[in-house]
Amino acid sequence: MIRSLRRHVPLLDWAPAYDRTAFSNDMIAALVVTIMLIPQSLAYALLAGLPPEAGIYASIAPIVLYAIFGTSRALAVGPVAVVSLLTASAVGQVADQGTAGYAVAALTLAVLSGGFLLLMGVLRLGFLANFLSHPVIAGFITASGILIAASQLKHILGIPAEGHTLPELVLSLGAHLDRINWITVALGLAATGFLFWARAHLKPLLRAMGAPAPLADILTKAGPVAAVVATTLAVWGLGLDQRGVAIVGTVPQGLPPLTLPGLSPDLLRALVLPAILISVIGFVESVSVAQTLAAKKRQRIDPDQELIGLGAANLGAGFTGGFPVTGGFSRSVVNFDAGAETPAAGIFTALGLAIAAVALTPLVHYLPKATLAATIIVAVLSLVDLSILKKTWGYARADFAAVAVTIVLTLGLGVEIGVAAGVALSVLLHLYRTSRPHVAELGRVPGTEHFRNIHRHSVETDPTLVSLRVDESLYFANARFLEDLIQKRVTEGCDIRNVVLMFSAVNEVDYSALESLEAINLRLRDMGVGLHLSEVKGPVMDRLHRSDFLTALNGQVFLSQYEAWTRLAPSSAPAAASAI
Amino acid sequence: MIRSLRRHVPLLDWAPAYDRTAFSNDMIAALVVTIMLIPQSLAYALLAGLPPEAGIYASIAPIVLYAIFGTSRALAVGPVAVVSLLTASAVGQVADQGTAGYAVAALTLAVLSGGFLLLMGVLRLGFLANFLSHPVIAGFITASGILIAASQLKHILGIPAEGHTLPELVLSLGAHLDRINWITVALGLAATGFLFWARAHLKPLLRAMGAPAPLADILTKAGPVAAVVATTLAVWGLGLDQRGVAIVGTVPQGLPPLTLPGLSPDLLRALVLPAILISVIGFVESVSVAQTLAAKKRQRIDPDQELIGLGAANLGAGFTGGFPVTGGFSRSVVNFDAGAETPAAGIFTALGLAIAAVALTPLVHYLPKATLAATIIVAVLSLVDLSILKKTWGYARADFAAVAVTIVLTLGLGVEIGVAAGVALSVLLHLYRTSRPHVAELGRVPGTEHFRNIHRHSVETDPTLVSLRVDESLYFANARFLEDLIQKRVTEGCDIRNVVLMFSAVNEVDYSALESLEAINLRLRDMGVGLHLSEVKGPVMDRLHRSDFLTALNGQVFLSQYEAWTRLAPSSAPAAASAI
Repeated sequence: MIRSLRRHVPLLDWAPAYDRTAFSNDMIAALVVTIMLIPQSLAYALLAGLPPEAGIYASIAPIVLYAIFGTSRALAVGPVAVVSLLTASAVGQVADQGTAGYAVAALTLAVLSGGFLLLMGVLRLGFLANFLSHPVIAGFITASGILIAASQLKHILGIPAEGHTLPELVLSLGAHLDRINWITVALGLAATGFLFWARAHLKPLLRAMGAPAPLADILTKAGPVAAVVATTLAVWGLGLDQRGVAIVGTVPQGLPPLTLPGLSPDLLRALVLPAILISVIGFVESVSVAQTLAAKKRQRIDPDQELIGLGAANLGAGFTGGFPVTGGFSRSVVNFDAGAETPAAGIFTALGLAIAAVALTPLVHYLPKATLAATIIVAVLSLVDLSILKKTWGYARADFAAVAVTIVLTLGLGVEIGVAAGVALSVLLHLYRTSRPHVAELGRVPGTEHFRNIHRHSVETDPTLVSLRVDESLYFANARFLEDLIQKRVTEGCDIRNVVLMFSAVNEVDYSALESLEAINLRLRDMGVGLHLSEVKGPVMDRLHRSDFLTALNGQVFLSQYEAWTRLAPSSAPAAASAI
Repeated sequence: MIRSLRRHVPLLDWAPAYDRTAFSNDMIAALVVTIMLIPQSLAYALLAGLPPEAGIYASIAPIVLYAIFGTSRALAVGPVAVVSLLTASAVGQVADQGTAGYAVAALTLAVLSGGFLLLMGVLRLGFLANFLSHPVIAGFITASGILIAASQLKHILGIPAEGHTLPELVLSLGAHLDRINWITVALGLAATGFLFWARAHLKPLLRAMGAPAPLADILTKAGPVAAVVATTLAVWGLGLDQRGVAIVGTVPQGLPPLTLPGLSPDLLRALVLPAILISVIGFVESVSVAQTLAAKKRQRIDPDQELIGLGAANLGAGFTGGFPVTGGFSRSVVNFDAGAETPAAGIFTALGLAIAAVALTPLVHYLPKATLAATIIVAVLSLVDLSILKKTWGYARADFAAVAVTIVLTLGLGVEIGVAAGVALSVLLHLYRTSRPHVAELGRVPGTEHFRNIHRHSVETDPTLVSLRVDESLYFANARFLEDLIQKRVTEGCDIRNVVLMFSAVNEVDYSALESLEAINLRLRDMGVGLHLSEVKGPVMDRLHRSDFLTALNGQVFLSQYEAWTRLAPSSAPAAASAI
């Protein structure tokens, strides 16, 4: 009971041993992460189409809940770019941005996603995430990065634009180019340029100026904060909001509110598939970050418990004015690098953000949206990695096809279709590959008990005996292939009296394959040809014993291929006779 | 050129060698099949919701076209029960039975299905049919048999009933029970009873009465014809059609007309998915019959050319007043047993049916629909085989689940959903099984070079070395499983210095698995643990060489597990030392 509670509430594991050193390390990490999260939270709310405070809210309760239920000691949970994009795409289909319905639908999406994650965790269905192959994920993240950057151009240019696909966004931007606000463009480009520069050059510069490494590090992480402060002051001081620069405006001051998601059947029906997609993608992203960081300290994370942690976080987001969240890559790395030792660092981060929500929100009134767009663009362009196309092309064409289809369809038709097509294609290509397994026709290496492919080695064969080694488990997708192959091979030679299937690489025989073997057996019997098996693995043999196949078999099961050869190849007989 | 023509027009293969013996054998087979097909064609037209002549038309041009392009020498093509049911279900969704639009939609369905089969044949996509696992097919055929029998009860009871699922049919029958026509019931039960009796007892009885075997055989096959004749005479003689017995009525006299299928975009869109389903199911059924019969004569059929033969047959049906067709089991067996030697038997059958269409149609005017329903019920109940549930339960739970879901959903929600769910479940269960591959931790059998599972054998191990044998190809569905497994195993023991993955059963490493191996390598390196591979197959090694994995590998690739052991297990050193 207590063990089970401990397993499901990892907090109980680390909290009793919590000490002063861990406390001070966690506090420092929390400070760094909080500074980084303030502009990031506002920016991802903008990306999701929500008011800026939603981003802060989505970073408070979820972090605390993950600290209680999650198993990673460094993962930082909150709004992330790809999930925010998915949120905008899903919610945009049921409500218009800026309406109350939109915010309510975002809450519903978070609750549905949290519920689905919890369900997967309780049912231990984390393996479902494995159906997202790495090429599909890589293609999807790259295409999402491009889509997100494109969607933020409107804020940099100061024009309206709509769309969830690249062609829609480009056309929409093109249609409004005459309304560009050049002051916004100047602010946006300055912020973008500064952020790119800071990312690459600020830390070396500060170090060269004599700043100690940790300080230089923190100041570099605070780059976005500097951009926020500078551009906010510029807008306020020069009254640029009067000259068409879009600003964040009034943000309510206070702790996250208790909110109720919309639960109408129509809304739930419209959001359930996007919620599943968000859950799975968020989970995959989060787990790979958590696993990488855990390995560095020889710790372990439990993927099924992670589902519960992320599920609780999303439920928390849904009831406190947020939107779907997951473990973010960059903030988790910052948290880890800054020395976070336990999930308490997350709790302190949440405290910091709560203080910001109460005290600092009036300060962002004059913050231009262009600056937030700049922080998003700089962040997501680091996700764009087209080299995956080259790498998979060099490695395997099937993987390349999965990447290319995912990228093209995500950009061209939207995130849901892109991912769905990528997953479907991966599965189809896998089934296709295993549906035509490698089958080697074997001969005996002279004077030995070894058997090798007759097309690659100089081996002995016997005209009455065909020995085939199947290099794949037998299941429905390749069962009929084997039927055709054997039928073809046996009708080629009139002298054939026996067929031996060497099963050394067959890990499974499903019912379809069993029926195919039965059909092969009957057909060979009708032709007067015997069917034999050799080197069948234990579990496969157990299975076959549960059917009538072995009793109906018009032949034998040999322990080794060599035994089959000595019994079935007449040409081996003289040798055997001479041995007597 | 000529070879390619010969391959695609198998007629050119057998026609030049055609002789008098083959001619007389084919003629006899054609006669038997024609007698059997006349009532069957009328009945399957009724099942498809079409006028009776459509069944005759669908048996003429398609048979001839298959004789030219098909590769089986005994397959008899025409309307079959399951495809007729699928036709009724698909066409019923776009038009009402009895309207001109219904017949036109059936033509469209045949043309679409023919086009899709041709396309699959030309692109050599026959392997797609393999995704229908045997349990799904068996479950689907059984459920279809039940559905078809239920759908024919209305003709036996003489009441109207609608529906494409078992609950719909049962409720609809129940609602009209007060309108039962008892004369129809009497006729229908008499016909059904006679057909069941004839199937089991007529042949032994005729033999006992001294009839020679071939005659007894033909007379038994003609059982349905006898039922048709007797009940038609009864209706005509007693004027039962005046007393509410539904009859076939006027059937146009003449050869199949040239018809144009409907080609409006809406109609095409509505029918394209059902057409694909019909193509695939018809192809699978047809190929398995053809293969079984070909094997009996040590002949071979070419599945891709079969697609072209069936495609041509369906196009023929679509342009000559028919509906979708495929190779039927019972008629093909009859054709084979009656001695058909070449596809010419099919051409003669088509001639026989053409004569029937011109000369015999007035004779079926008074044929009661209840008799046709009886022939359908008797035919399809032989398809119902619930023993598949027991067989798969005993063999493997996953296969049982696929059968059960297919049967329940086909009966409860209709044929399309039933098959789609069955296919999806088969694929998911396959991915699930391979997503958790068997991984054995290995130890050395003392004094040998063999390594076995430490949990099954008494073997030597070394506390610093973990050797794992993965019994499955590595691909996206199990890549992360391996990451988790290794992480878990390595964090359990603090002494571990090296991990060896034995790849003897790994036939493939896809890009996802490559990235997982890279992640495992980095994480183990962070923990100060080496990663090694042993017994990697040639093609897998070739693949790995195309990536950077081998250069980044924090360890070595060993030719054999024994070599890895001697190099990495300190405890093996003393033995080696003592050997010196």
